[in-house]
Amino acid sequence: MRNIKLTIEYDGREYHGWQKQPNKLNIQGEIEKAIQTITGETVELIGSGRTDAGVHAFAQVANFKIESDFPIEKIAIAINSQLKQSIRIKKAEEVEENFHSRYHCHKKTYAYIIDNSEQGTAIYRHLTYHVPQSLNIEAMQEAANYLMGEHDFSSFKSSGTSSKSSVRIIYVAQILKEQERVVIQLTGNGFLYNMVRIIAGTLLEIGLGEKKPEEMKEILEAKDRQKAGKTLPATGLFLMNVEY
Amino acid sequence: MRNIKLTIEYDGREYHGWQKQPNKLNIQGEIEKAIQTITGETVELIGSGRTDAGVHAFAQVANFKIESDFPIEKIAIAINSQLKQSIRIKKAEEVEENFHSRYHCHKKTYAYIIDNSEQGTAIYRHLTYHVPQSLNIEAMQEAANYLMGEHDFSSFKSSGTSSKSSVRIIYVAQILKEQERVVIQLTGNGFLYNMVRIIAGTLLEIGLGEKKPEEMKEILEAKDRQKAGKTLPATGLFLMNVEY
Repeated sequence: MRNIKLTIEYDGREYHGWQKQPNKLNIQGEIEKAIQTITGETVELIGSGRTDAGVHAFAQVANFKIESDFPIEKIAIAINSQLKQSIRIKKAEEVEENFHSRYHCHKKTYAYIIDNSEQGTAIYRHLTYHVPQSLNIEAMQEAANYLMGEHDFSSFKSSGTSSKSSVRIIYVAQILKEQERVVIQLTGNGFLYNMVRIIAGTLLEIGLGEKKPEEMKEILEAKDRQKAGKTLPATGLFLMNVEY
Repeated sequence: MRNIKLTIEYDGREYHGWQKQPNKLNIQGEIEKAIQTITGETVELIGSGRTDAGVHAFAQVANFKIESDFPIEKIAIAINSQLKQSIRIKKAEEVEENFHSRYHCHKKTYAYIIDNSEQGTAIYRHLTYHVPQSLNIEAMQEAANYLMGEHDFSSFKSSGTSSKSSVRIIYVAQILKEQERVVIQLTGNGFLYNMVRIIAGTLLEIGLGEKKPEEMKEILEAKDRQKAGKTLPATGLFLMNVEY
């Protein structure tokens, strides 16, 4: 069997998330159908992880196995020809047979993009979350520093998740100010359900002065979802990068 | 009468251009209606110039006159409350009574954004024009250099335009390579109908090796639309800036 690794960009707006589910447009299912059309084989496309409804990805990674000798250099363009423009296979590579997109993933980077202009943006309105009030970036960065390292992130996961452990490592937690945007960028070994959006919501409250930076430490230690901030909407969230 | 200057961002996709016209959604008309709703006055909104159907603007400038003493610092947010998110008033300023957005405009900057990635972009698909082939940026810049200065740009205007003179000055013509994008940026004292899109189309043919950089000089001198390249689609075109 050949094992094919895909790097995938998508605009999450039209989809009910990555994961295959009946009667709801989803990214995994659309790509599986496209692969079946071009190779004639039914495949299971394994993603590095799910992304929720509305979440965007610049570089999701997934893999699938086929018998077909379809030329590797034509796979991306062939799959793309079967997809809407809101999903693009950016790269297709042949990898060793035991490569697994989910199990072998070491690091992921997510970015949460806040449009911090006073009146909001027209052009990027579907790719940002608008916060008109001025934000204290230094306070947000001070709070973000508490997140780095290995912690139990129970305070930052939505209920109803089935993950066995809530311990994750965050390697980098950065607040970047780019013109009228504030970008919260997190690199970790994995993220719990809604974890980035809850962290972003908590950092936002700190940026607005509703919470103090030191409270981030208390929130982490409380292991209680009620202590953290709101879950921000999917529109500002991007899966930037998956590392192996 | 008070004279109010607006700086406006819009996503051109949903509109039949800037200019007011019956039964077609247009930007000027939508903003005029919003101003009427909040001030009770019928105004004429004078833009720095038209933009065509589908063209985007980060900072179009327009002005209008009112009697109302509506507080200047609340005008932007009040107009925005009456508009769809695809148009945002970024700034409203009170200016002297003789200020005229069109007559007093000194310089405009347009950018044409080519998505030069092999497989195309999902996320920015409505904000770029996709060209998968590799482009010779140096050749494009060499050709663009011929455009700078005062010239008769008849070769780069669509027929059916009513401008008296086709002489314009281009101050800056730059080709920028930004990751997977190629940006054609033009600053001039004014632009003819479709001029930026025809220049972009001609530069694209040069970048693809279909025309030589020196041909740009001949095309300019020919004053013949037939000699220039194709008019590229509106999707990649942005009005970046208007200077007074």
